[in-house]
Parts: sequence; C-alpha cells; structure tokens
Amino acid sequence: MQRLATSEADFERRFAAIVDDRRTSDVDVSRDVAAILDDVRNRGDRALVEYTMRFDKHRLSDEADWRISRKECEAAYRDLDPELRDALELAADRIRSYHGAQLPEDRDYTDAAGMRLGARWNAVEAAGLYVPGGRAAYPSSLLMNAIPAKVAGVERLAVVTPTPNGEANPLVLAAAHIAKVDEIWRVGGAQAIGALAYGTDRIARVDVVTGPGNAWVAEAKRQMFGVVGIDMVAGPSEILVIADADNDPRWIAADLLSQAEHDPTSQSILITDDAPFALQVTDAVELQLRDLATREAAAQSWNDNGVVIVVDTLEEAAALADRLAAEHVELAVAEPDPLFAKLRHAGSVFLGRMTPEAVGDYVAGPNHVLPTGRRARFASGLSVLDFMKRTSFLSASPDGLAAIGPAAVALAEAEGLPAHARSVALRLK
Amino acid sequence: MQRLATSEADFERRFAAIVDDRRTSDVDVSRDVAAILDDVRNRGDRALVEYTMRFDKHRLSDEADWRISRKECEAAYRDLDPELRDALELAADRIRSYHGAQLPEDRDYTDAAGMRLGARWNAVEAAGLYVPGGRAAYPSSLLMNAIPAKVAGVERLAVVTPTPNGEANPLVLAAAHIAKVDEIWRVGGAQAIGALAYGTDRIARVDVVTGPGNAWVAEAKRQMFGVVGIDMVAGPSEILVIADADNDPRWIAADLLSQAEHDPTSQSILITDDAPFALQVTDAVELQLRDLATREAAAQSWNDNGVVIVVDTLEEAAALADRLAAEHVELAVAEPDPLFAKLRHAGSVFLGRMTPEAVGDYVAGPNHVLPTGRRARFASGLSVLDFMKRTSFLSASPDGLAAIGPAAVALAEAEGLPAHARSVALRLK
Repeated sequence: MQRLATSEADFERRFAAIVDDRRTSDVDVSRDVAAILDDVRNRGDRALVEYTMRFDKHRLSDEADWRISRKECEAAYRDLDPELRDALELAADRIRSYHGAQLPEDRDYTDAAGMRLGARWNAVEAAGLYVPGGRAAYPSSLLMNAIPAKVAGVERLAVVTPTPNGEANPLVLAAAHIAKVDEIWRVGGAQAIGALAYGTDRIARVDVVTGPGNAWVAEAKRQMFGVVGIDMVAGPSEILVIADADNDPRWIAADLLSQAEHDPTSQSILITDDAPFALQVTDAVELQLRDLATREAAAQSWNDNGVVIVVDTLEEAAALADRLAAEHVELAVAEPDPLFAKLRHAGSVFLGRMTPEAVGDYVAGPNHVLPTGRRARFASGLSVLDFMKRTSFLSASPDGLAAIGPAAVALAEAEGLPAHARSVALRLK
Repeated sequence: MQRLATSEADFERRFAAIVDDRRTSDVDVSRDVAAILDDVRNRGDRALVEYTMRFDKHRLSDEADWRISRKECEAAYRDLDPELRDALELAADRIRSYHGAQLPEDRDYTDAAGMRLGARWNAVEAAGLYVPGGRAAYPSSLLMNAIPAKVAGVERLAVVTPTPNGEANPLVLAAAHIAKVDEIWRVGGAQAIGALAYGTDRIARVDVVTGPGNAWVAEAKRQMFGVVGIDMVAGPSEILVIADADNDPRWIAADLLSQAEHDPTSQSILITDDAPFALQVTDAVELQLRDLATREAAAQSWNDNGVVIVVDTLEEAAALADRLAAEHVELAVAEPDPLFAKLRHAGSVFLGRMTPEAVGDYVAGPNHVLPTGRRARFASGLSVLDFMKRTSFLSASPDGLAAIGPAAVALAEAEGLPAHARSVALRLK
C-alpha cells in the first residue's frame, strides 16, 4: 500500500504513476482468441464440442448437455433459502424500476422550414450474456445484465456459461429464472462469444453481447465489436473513497476491503484531509483482514494496489478524483453535494456516510457494470441503451425541400457528388 | 445488378446471400496496424514524422508543417464562394439544432424506500476527429462529426487529417472554422489514430475518436476501442429504396445512383411492387450513368452490388428491409407512416417522395454518420451521446439503508464476499 500526501515534493510524479498504472497483465491472448473465433465461425457446434471438452471437461452431446432448461432454473429458484429469494426479488424489482426510467423518448417534430425530423428507439432482437463459471459466478451480475436487456424490450436473451465438469451455480440459475432469461448454454470462453456473434446450428446469432469474463472472454468481445454490439471493455475494478475525519474508520476500512476482496488486481484508494484518520483507517484495514474469508485476494490487492492520499483540504480531492476517473467513488462527508458538483469523471458515485458501495452492487437499482481503468473519462455504466438503437427519420414537404434543397445541391456539387445533387435538383423543378 | 422477385422459387436463397454479403475486402491489415500503433505509443512524434514522410510525402518539422492554424481555416472560410458559405452555414445551423435537442436529461429522485437515485451526464473533455485526405475529404462529414461533439460540450476538438504533399482541402478548412475545431494536425492513417489515443509530446491524448477513414484507419480505431471511446465500425454503405409505381422513375434512379457514386463497394437496392416500374427505373439508371462524372464508381457499384426486388405487395417490403437493416431507407410512397411503423432495423429513414437521401447527407439536421453493413440491427447513428458519458449516483438515508441493506448483506454472503457484507452490516447496527 502506498501513502502519498499532496504536501510532499514528489506527489505529482507518484500520483501520475498511479493514474497511468493499468494493473493488467501483459499476456497477449489476441492471437489465440482470433484462432478460436475463426474456428467457431467455420466449424460451429463441432468446434464448441471440442473446446468445451478441452477447457471444461464437459461433454456436449445430448440436449441436456448443451442447455440448462427453464425447468432447472425454476427448480433452483424454488429450492432457494426464502431470505435469499426475497433478497434476489428485491434486487430485481429495484433494478427493473431504475432501468425502466432510463427508457429513452422518441422524437417527432416539424421545424420552421417545414422539415419533419425525429428519432425512434427500438430494442435489438437478441442479446447474449456471458456468465463466468466458478468463483466469479455472481447472481447479482446476471440480474444487472439481464434485466436492462429485458426492460429495453429484447425478445431473446441467451446466457452462455461454462459448467466445468457439468456443474452450474444454483444461485445463478435462480437469478436467470427471476430475470426471465430465455436460453442458457453450457459453453464458455472465447468460443462462447464466437457462437453468440456468428451463430451456430444450435445457438442462433445475437445482436449484442455483454457480461464479464476472463482475459480470453474480454478479448473475444473486443474482437467481435462491429460484428455485434458489446458493452465497454472491462479491466480490474477500483474504488475511491473520499472521507473526512468524522467517519467511523471501521466503516471506511470495510468499504476499501469490499473492493480489494474481488481480485488481487483491484484497487482501493482513500483520500482524506486528516492524517491521523488515515492511520486509523489503515489500522482498521489490517484488523479486518485478519478474519476475512477472502483475506488472500484482499490483502494482495491492498498491499500491491492500495493507496492512501492525504490532502490539505477536500477541495483538492475533486481534481484528483477526476484524474483517477474511478469506477466507484464514495463521498463520505456530511454534505456530499458540493463535492459531487465538482466531479466530472466517475462510473458511479455514492453520496454520504450511509452509502457503502456494496449497497449499489446489489440492491440500490443503478447498474453495477461500470467503466473501469480510467474509462469513466469516456464510458458509462451498462444501461437499457446498450440493448437499443436509434433510427433517425426525416420527411420533406415540397416547401421544406424548396427551403433547404438548394443548399444540398450546392454542397453535393462542391464535394464532387453529382448524383447526390441530381437527386435533389430533379425534385426542385 | 441482380433482379429478384419474391414470387420466384429461389428468392429466399438469393435474398439470404445478399443479406450475408459483407462486400468487404479480405485484406487483413490488423498486424500492420498493430505494429504502427505500438510504434506511435513507444516513439511518439518521431514515429509520426517517419510515417507521414513515407505515406504522405509530407515533412513534419516546423509548427506550420504539423498544424493548420485557425487563421488558415478562417481564411479558407472568407475565400469561399458566398453561396457555398451560406450552404455550409445553413447545414451547420440545422445540424446544431437537431443535435441540441438530443442532449440527455439528468435524473435525481428519491424513491419510496428513501433511496436517492439518479444519473448525471457530462461531456468528455477531448475528442479527436479523423478527416480523410483526397477524394473522400468532405466538409459535410467534418460538420457531422464536429458539431455533435461541440454541442455535447467537448472543450477540445482535435482534427487529424493527412495532407499528401502538404495539400489540404479548403472546403474542409472552412467547415472546421464554422464548427469551431480547436486543433488540426497534418497526420493521417493508423498513426494518427495512435497519436490521438495514446498522446504524443505534441498531440495531447483525447477521450473519444470518431470519423471515417480507409481500412487502416478503421482497424486502428477498432484496436484502440477501450483505450478511447470510438464510434461504430463503418463498412461499405448502402441505400434501400422502397417505391411504388406512382414515383417518377428518374427520381428513384438518381437516389440509387447517389449511393452508388460513393464507392464501388456501395450498395443500392430497390424494392417495388410493380415490375414495369422496376424496368423504368433501371432504364433511367443506365441513362443517367451516361453523363455522370462519377460514372466509374457508380457503374461498378450498380453492376456489382445493385439489387432490384419485385414484391407482390409493399407489405412484404418491411420484413425484407428489416433483414437488410440498411444504413439509409427511403419510403417513396404517398403515405409512408404505416410502412415506417413496421420497420425496426434502419440507420435513417427518408419518408415520402420528396425526401431524397442526399438532403439528409447535408442539410436536414440528423447525422449522416450511420450504421452500415446490417449493423443497424444493433447500432445507431452518431449523436451527442457518443461524446458524453453518464455517472450514476445513489444516496442512502438511515431509513433507506435499513430497508434495503439486509438484502445486500444476504446476497453478499451468498456470493462469498464478506467484506461487501460487512461494509453494509456495520452501518446497520
């Protein structure tokens, strides 16, 4: 864990290094991934069978080997502990409500020149959702990806998920039941992304692919961008907590660790205007690490990537936060709004002392799929818009074309496109 | 040019082949592009100097070799033919107005559980715009990319454009003046995209890169996706005209040729319910081709990729149009709205007989940067949203956390993330 203070002479150099550090491995999987995608494109299901046997030790032969049925999802839902079932239902209801209010409005108006102009939004027909197997198989992640797609109006939602040795996570299946997923395929890795993008005999092509995955999955999505729509490339995630000395240091320590426990490459950063408070927090982190079941990942993340920055005043924090453009930003102060007004680049912001980031991971309603690795400078969290597209439209009345058509003719001729000019000029006669 | 009729036995096979034809060359430039991007990342301006000398025969040494100044743009604007200047100003005003109405609204509300939730939009700080040199250097394209960025609120808009042998297109410079472009750099190709994405000593990094280009530029943008935001991958473009027999066949022929003249890989498709009208249109195409200055490209496009489909009724056309998901769709009928209501996948739709596609290319207001190659199934035209990003936010009151916090604790524990659970549980005590 690094300690910095803006008052120190080498602050700028050290802070810039933190901003520029991508925390990603340099393993280049692009060639391997390209080969797998090509293979799935050419050999379809046969390629899927081979890769799934090789990587997941799972044989795809009967229908039940290929797919997890809706009945299995319903059974997993029925068998859930009632408290968990209620929690998942509450989360789903709140995610549905927040994303429902995101639905964009169509436009249709006629302007002073007599031109009718507008835009109409439609959902894509089919979306594919990657769900990792094993440790990172989170039911919350399924809800956060599937519900926006369904709210957008996507008719067909296909999940792909590796089931090593045939095993699936019952919590994920229960979440799929709640989110009304249409198909679940027992395939994973880059080959699953290829199947969704190109289609195979069994798995019909989709229009958009979202969902988290390992380096192979992320690279496969990147390579399929343009063949299908994808969500933003995801990297190691991060939290930035901006806190004054009036917080309980144990609360802030828990917030920092809630990010650190995800993965050793995660990053937790504290900015505070009180040096003794910073020490109290780091002491609390060490204390809480002792009995944490996820201690191994959390400690490595905190030791390797944790940062504590002491500033003179919290006014300084907003500019630093914008340079970090963190996925999650907590403003643990009594009056967070003035600080929030100064912030420009952040995936999601958690206002006030009573809003730990984890409440947003599960049940608050906003999406937990957020831009990582400083991408909040230009990218947004997942939303219904990722599953929709906009068609613009226009209609010229004779008067409208008379008003603006001659300018189009002049520009088309200047650009050396005479057929463009003619298509307008013929109608102006 | 292919003629099809839905009444023919092999229609489905032939139509499916048209839908699946990507019309793109198979030349794989990805490795060359990756090497150039790496080189620009590592050697910065020195790499730019070498590539610009090699590809554009232009020496980058003095400031004037690197940049085109604002004064040069203003001079180009002043020297414009007044009719053209008025046409560009009209186009800019209308594009500004249409895109201004696209600006998204922020949200901020408190729900029944006592949770404050919302989303806030901000522009990115800097955008880069690629402008091709030579034949495809269109002032309209500069306006269509630059104005949405400025309307979104982007502070710094940097244009990169190759100037072979030092020559720039004065119309493009005039358009840059109108659109208030901040910087113009005399670099092009994949190396220019690398400079925008990674930054060099001279050219500061941007957040989003848009704009058309050749295969190298398109591949460079694709590879930089995630390092920066980019607009949708663009391929050969297309028009689909749906027309009944009550149109002037010369108008429809001109519309088909206005797409064909762009490039030999462009595609023009006519769907009509009247076989004799189809013949009148194709005869008119041949006639108009004779005296067209862009005859070479237009004839090759029409011969290689042109399609005429005769349907029994125009009712059939909507389903075919959705499968084609064309960039531009004209509905040249007296009452286009019922047909438009049946359409789901199209980049932009031109309603009625008096709305040639070319009016949308220049002056109508909606963007002419639209999804090509069937990507209208999942992608949208360029908009202010491409230059903005959304930050979600939430704030829990003590009551709000009491209402939904326990569900978050239950889910975090079920997912094996105890620090997540603790960060909420500590605040519930």
